[in-house]
Amino acid sequence: MDLVERALAGERLAIARLLTQVENNTLLGQEALQRLYSRTGNAHIVGLTGAPGTGKSSLANQLAKVLRSTPNAHKVAIVAVDPSSPFTGGALLGDRVRMRDLAGDPGVFVRSMASRGALGGIARATSAVVQVLDALGFGIILVETVGTGQSEVEIARLAHTVIVVDAPGLGDDVQAIKAGILEIADILVVNKADLPGVENTLRALSLMLEMIPQAQGETNWKPPLLRASAVNGEGIEEIVQAIFRHGEYLRNHSLWTTREKYRVLTEILERVQETLLEQWKHTVGEARLNEMVNNVLKREISPAEAVKRLMER
Amino acid sequence: MDLVERALAGERLAIARLLTQVENNTLLGQEALQRLYSRTGNAHIVGLTGAPGTGKSSLANQLAKVLRSTPNAHKVAIVAVDPSSPFTGGALLGDRVRMRDLAGDPGVFVRSMASRGALGGIARATSAVVQVLDALGFGIILVETVGTGQSEVEIARLAHTVIVVDAPGLGDDVQAIKAGILEIADILVVNKADLPGVENTLRALSLMLEMIPQAQGETNWKPPLLRASAVNGEGIEEIVQAIFRHGEYLRNHSLWTTREKYRVLTEILERVQETLLEQWKHTVGEARLNEMVNNVLKREISPAEAVKRLMER
Repeated sequence: MDLVERALAGERLAIARLLTQVENNTLLGQEALQRLYSRTGNAHIVGLTGAPGTGKSSLANQLAKVLRSTPNAHKVAIVAVDPSSPFTGGALLGDRVRMRDLAGDPGVFVRSMASRGALGGIARATSAVVQVLDALGFGIILVETVGTGQSEVEIARLAHTVIVVDAPGLGDDVQAIKAGILEIADILVVNKADLPGVENTLRALSLMLEMIPQAQGETNWKPPLLRASAVNGEGIEEIVQAIFRHGEYLRNHSLWTTREKYRVLTEILERVQETLLEQWKHTVGEARLNEMVNNVLKREISPAEAVKRLMER
Repeated sequence: MDLVERALAGERLAIARLLTQVENNTLLGQEALQRLYSRTGNAHIVGLTGAPGTGKSSLANQLAKVLRSTPNAHKVAIVAVDPSSPFTGGALLGDRVRMRDLAGDPGVFVRSMASRGALGGIARATSAVVQVLDALGFGIILVETVGTGQSEVEIARLAHTVIVVDAPGLGDDVQAIKAGILEIADILVVNKADLPGVENTLRALSLMLEMIPQAQGETNWKPPLLRASAVNGEGIEEIVQAIFRHGEYLRNHSLWTTREKYRVLTEILERVQETLLEQWKHTVGEARLNEMVNNVLKREISPAEAVKRLMER
């Protein structure tokens, strides 16, 4: 059996190795993705995002546990887009902590990704990893990102359902981050609801929610505002129900396909852009490119002018 | 006088309006950038990044104050890449708070940018805004970003000098963020040095610094590890000295040009990529692109196969 077959048979080490190949965009990874693609399309992809300190990771773990305890439970995967460096190994450490928590359940698979250093960008790598997990039969895939960077929020936005996590008692700059991601929320969770100040946080959020302009064509879904305490396991059941309800809503209003379409289009355009640039670099040649960079450095021409000249041929 | 001339004359409202045009990539903004480009190349661009809660903004304000009080002081600009949404106005609010702090000094200009919604991406917009400020005679430009997202860290990396800010007593996920950005630091600052635990933070950082592999070709610069308390105005002078020292070091080792070259090349390639995709979309046509997206949705072909077919013509 080759790696793909062993992964399909549920061998955990094979899955981990396959994901590494896919993440690094190796030839083997590309071929595997190609082989597995027809098996995708069954997973409910759930984005989980929020500022640092909101307890996203604990929440993801708790969600996985509760999701696994429902009747006819799907297999659950957690993909954590981790802002730590591959060099310092933060991602690996995180994995080990989670693994301990969810250990013993072969129906849960956890994968951390370092948000830098992935060949072709973290968006491509995350999307590819999610596709493989989907093909391997994970029915629910939680994609967890820190909701501060543009690309990280984009990743969460590619899910069917986006959960934005907030918590009481965070600092000022975290408040600003929060404001920026509320607009993409399908479900809003105030975690750490055991902390003081939770009522204020709930009130502020519900005010902000009212201010958000309704997205066109999706007017019937009003993001529920839920409270939870991941550490105490409280409120998790309600979030799981909201995830299912949102999935149903998307299917009933043909929005499931709309979101998938957006995801596929985004992925295709990203790959095209990458390929076009590679081809272009090859045609133009390094010498000519260098010459233009030097002209810009000498302030003889502007970057825009350099681009114009480079594109002329 | 037109907008550019009025901005060159130092009229603050004109500068603000010009920056808006440039940020939004309007025709007027593009033309202005073209006209002003030959005047750029004099500013020392300083990136300031760190996890949320490290007090970057206060530090930027204090640095501006001290920089302005040196003999023959340069004009100073602060460009804050703010992760808040344009909709909720977080950026504007931030500006007003800062403005109050630095009010009365015409040699300081503060500009906040919303990290989403900028046409052509936040990296392009930030780079353009920095170029205009450079052309308008701001000798030191502090570019402040939250060091969590990939694109935000990239923005900081395009500076001549990168300051990474840390603080004691931050949570676990913030520790992970920190690890990821240490590698790009030219100067390392532990802010909030009045808080308990500062010695631990300093010790941990100096250990981590030792673990970082030396970048090739820049082996002589050892990032200084400084402590500061922006709120009390302590340690700011030392940071300013380190900035000047690093600028000198770059110039003496021809690294100033190396970094500028990297920045120009990055900017050119980003613009080229954007243009190529637009041209390509036009050639391929929406109908064909839609057809391929639908084929992928039906799982008849993979995204990679779709790209291959779309690129064949």
